[in-house]
Amino acid sequence: MITRLRTKARTDRTELDALLDATRVGHFAFVDDAGGPVVIPTAVVRDGDRVLAHGSTGSRWMRSLSAGRQTCLAVTALDGLVIARSAFESSFHYRSAVLFGRCTTVPPDAKPAALDLITEALLPGRSAEIRRPTTRELEATLVLAFPISEWSLKVSDDWPEDPPEDVAAQAWAGVLPMVVGYAPPRPAPDLRAGIGVPASVTALRAAAAPAR
Amino acid sequence: MITRLRTKARTDRTELDALLDATRVGHFAFVDDAGGPVVIPTAVVRDGDRVLAHGSTGSRWMRSLSAGRQTCLAVTALDGLVIARSAFESSFHYRSAVLFGRCTTVPPDAKPAALDLITEALLPGRSAEIRRPTTRELEATLVLAFPISEWSLKVSDDWPEDPPEDVAAQAWAGVLPMVVGYAPPRPAPDLRAGIGVPASVTALRAAAAPAR
Repeated sequence: MITRLRTKARTDRTELDALLDATRVGHFAFVDDAGGPVVIPTAVVRDGDRVLAHGSTGSRWMRSLSAGRQTCLAVTALDGLVIARSAFESSFHYRSAVLFGRCTTVPPDAKPAALDLITEALLPGRSAEIRRPTTRELEATLVLAFPISEWSLKVSDDWPEDPPEDVAAQAWAGVLPMVVGYAPPRPAPDLRAGIGVPASVTALRAAAAPAR
Repeated sequence: MITRLRTKARTDRTELDALLDATRVGHFAFVDDAGGPVVIPTAVVRDGDRVLAHGSTGSRWMRSLSAGRQTCLAVTALDGLVIARSAFESSFHYRSAVLFGRCTTVPPDAKPAALDLITEALLPGRSAEIRRPTTRELEATLVLAFPISEWSLKVSDDWPEDPPEDVAAQAWAGVLPMVVGYAPPRPAPDLRAGIGVPASVTALRAAAAPAR
């Protein structure tokens, strides 16, 4: 994002947690064996003082991160358009965190609980609606834990800051908030007759930010 | 994202362009002087065969990228939840592109047009509603151009793929599409009386994907 004077660096852990809890996708960056940059998007879920990510044991980058390669994780939320009276002062409302460190691998005995936590974070209530993972599925899944230890957070949530001569002119200024919502669920083509939309899906749609 | 068999790598440039045109934020990754990974979110806008990003000339990372440091750019869109009959088969609908290369700096004489293009991409019609940039503003802004040359694109847009024994059981399966919309605009506290919401804002809200 463009660095503006009003964009405050934040040090409040609760603000970091709020961002992590509201955001589904993070971007891991690391350096490959040839010294080049790599960036990988993946689902991230906070679990107390760590961030969980999961993937296939067949994924080369997951294995590389699980082996403790140095990495950083960006988690970014776009909250709105800041519409100033000039292009120069226009920007976004956003929250942007970067965490630094190395991942560890969640051990086999802790994997079921970690995967339940991921499932519940992405679709609360879903765990109780589906069967338990099989041994084969658990073995095929790698779960990474990234410590919330070294991090930075920037938040832009202020009004446009136009100079007086622009305020005195004719252009509108304000903020256009962005909201993420859910369209009606689409049943799978192979869904058997008589199986209705589950409570987890209905609740998630109802909890999504309504237009203000 | 979890790599699934059904997640197809795509080579169609029009699909890449559609993702770039629909997504406002990208993540640049690069390697710092100490050899560590860095990841930076920023607004990105496609301009033909290149992606534009802009920021302050006071930003260290912008200057570093403008000097031609090797980088990669991830652009990711989350399109929905794939809700399968097991946690293992559940995932996301997403589109994920990574572009590789080095940025160049847009020269001073091409900067006004590039900045107009960025303004128009973020809020179509806005350029005509605001004054032109000043010389001082242009000088304070760095515009980067990243070539669309070496890239990869992965798209997950299919139905859940549950095994027959799960299809025969009781859990629901389907897709919950995610949509980004805009709440009503909030006027700045210092907005003068009699200045109404501009056409650009009204049109952007009207064009946002409605609930299906």
